[in-house]
Amino acid sequence: MSGHLAVVGIGPGDARWLTLEAQAALEAAEALYGYGPYLDRVPARPGQARHASDNREEMHRAADALGHAAQGARVAVVSGGDPGVFAMAAAICEAIENGPPPWRALDVTIIPGISAMLAVAARAGAPLGHDFCALSLSDNLKSWDVIERRLEAAADAGFVIAFYNPVSRARPWQLASAFERLRRRLPGTTPVIFGRAVGRVEETVTVTSLDVADAATADMATLVIVGSRATRVIARPGRPLVYTPRAATEASA
Amino acid sequence: MSGHLAVVGIGPGDARWLTLEAQAALEAAEALYGYGPYLDRVPARPGQARHASDNREEMHRAADALGHAAQGARVAVVSGGDPGVFAMAAAICEAIENGPPPWRALDVTIIPGISAMLAVAARAGAPLGHDFCALSLSDNLKSWDVIERRLEAAADAGFVIAFYNPVSRARPWQLASAFERLRRRLPGTTPVIFGRAVGRVEETVTVTSLDVADAATADMATLVIVGSRATRVIARPGRPLVYTPRAATEASA
Repeated sequence: MSGHLAVVGIGPGDARWLTLEAQAALEAAEALYGYGPYLDRVPARPGQARHASDNREEMHRAADALGHAAQGARVAVVSGGDPGVFAMAAAICEAIENGPPPWRALDVTIIPGISAMLAVAARAGAPLGHDFCALSLSDNLKSWDVIERRLEAAADAGFVIAFYNPVSRARPWQLASAFERLRRRLPGTTPVIFGRAVGRVEETVTVTSLDVADAATADMATLVIVGSRATRVIARPGRPLVYTPRAATEASA
Repeated sequence: MSGHLAVVGIGPGDARWLTLEAQAALEAAEALYGYGPYLDRVPARPGQARHASDNREEMHRAADALGHAAQGARVAVVSGGDPGVFAMAAAICEAIENGPPPWRALDVTIIPGISAMLAVAARAGAPLGHDFCALSLSDNLKSWDVIERRLEAAADAGFVIAFYNPVSRARPWQLASAFERLRRRLPGTTPVIFGRAVGRVEETVTVTSLDVADAATADMATLVIVGSRATRVIARPGRPLVYTPRAATEASA
């Protein structure tokens, strides 16, 4: 089978966060599949077909792209951030597992990208400089009980936590509930970072503390980082630097 | 103060994993600081000074680079992977916090990069497609007790785990001990991925399972990913695909 499927991470908003490999893969594709706003970030090329779909249609998009590649085409699925982190790569794998047997023989390449937590962390300093976890607050695909258990385990064990999908129209209360849970386990001074639309003109990065962190600061374009007991804030002109030291002392762990 | 310091992530081995922003920052710098093998990956430019240092000299390197920038120079610290993940950004922040007050006024930019776990995950499929954590096995800077507590908490709560610094000459036994701990808590069939020197000519990616995973497969250039109960392996021609589905069922959580 001569078809090829690339799952391409284009990073968060800033076009300069594209890797050279992702740029080459987008240029080489005969057809692009993706969520509309991500496709809009890829320059149009003559002769290249573009198939935009809704954010909630990941499995349909995956099947369409795989089907097209299986016909022998060179297809790219465009993913925001890194395709492997709460994005399209898992949907493609799931579609391959449940799809027709020839899809398993397809040449599939995953092209990594800058995930949102790395971009937000870079703006703030180095909050992910020590052990951390990434947790999606979307309860479309798992129960809220599982999410609560994970965030408590992470906080108790001393992991910094990056929250993906902290809020959506269908999930207005989850982030406030997560903060409330964490307030029972972490000091009120624990740093909290809201990174909204990083790399885009409307970017805002807010540094606050757990006792006063307001879930209403976050929307669908926001990634939230909650520090561990070890995370520190350095006051300086402008926005402070937030970092988690490389050394864990017993007190901080 | 007119100096500027950029902490630049150049990704793992493959030069095509450089972002356009990182490339521009490296070109604009008057002086580069970094671990020798990382500097070797940056093309030489006339008039650009290069200060190579040993891997264990992170705090000295940070202080030297900050001191140089404070004199008004445009300085770049070159970091492998992403500078914010077990790399130079936290060392720079720590040096700023403990250094002379003028360093706090310096213009500092962290430039994100492809972290090793994203590159290894991309080679394997989508093992980080659901909640996961990143844990350094280096006990130079934290006690082994803290590491054990964290890996058990992560496994019990259903996080996939990416191990950074799994082994070194001074730490020959830690990874085997971590596998042994995890075998008591996770099924023997749990997928384990060894990604060695990804993006370089000597790259090897091995997919195995927890019951037979051999710590001797890893060296200093290896990143190890251990799946959760939900992580799946899809057999196909060549290396299998490994992924963690976006949906967590109660059984898998």
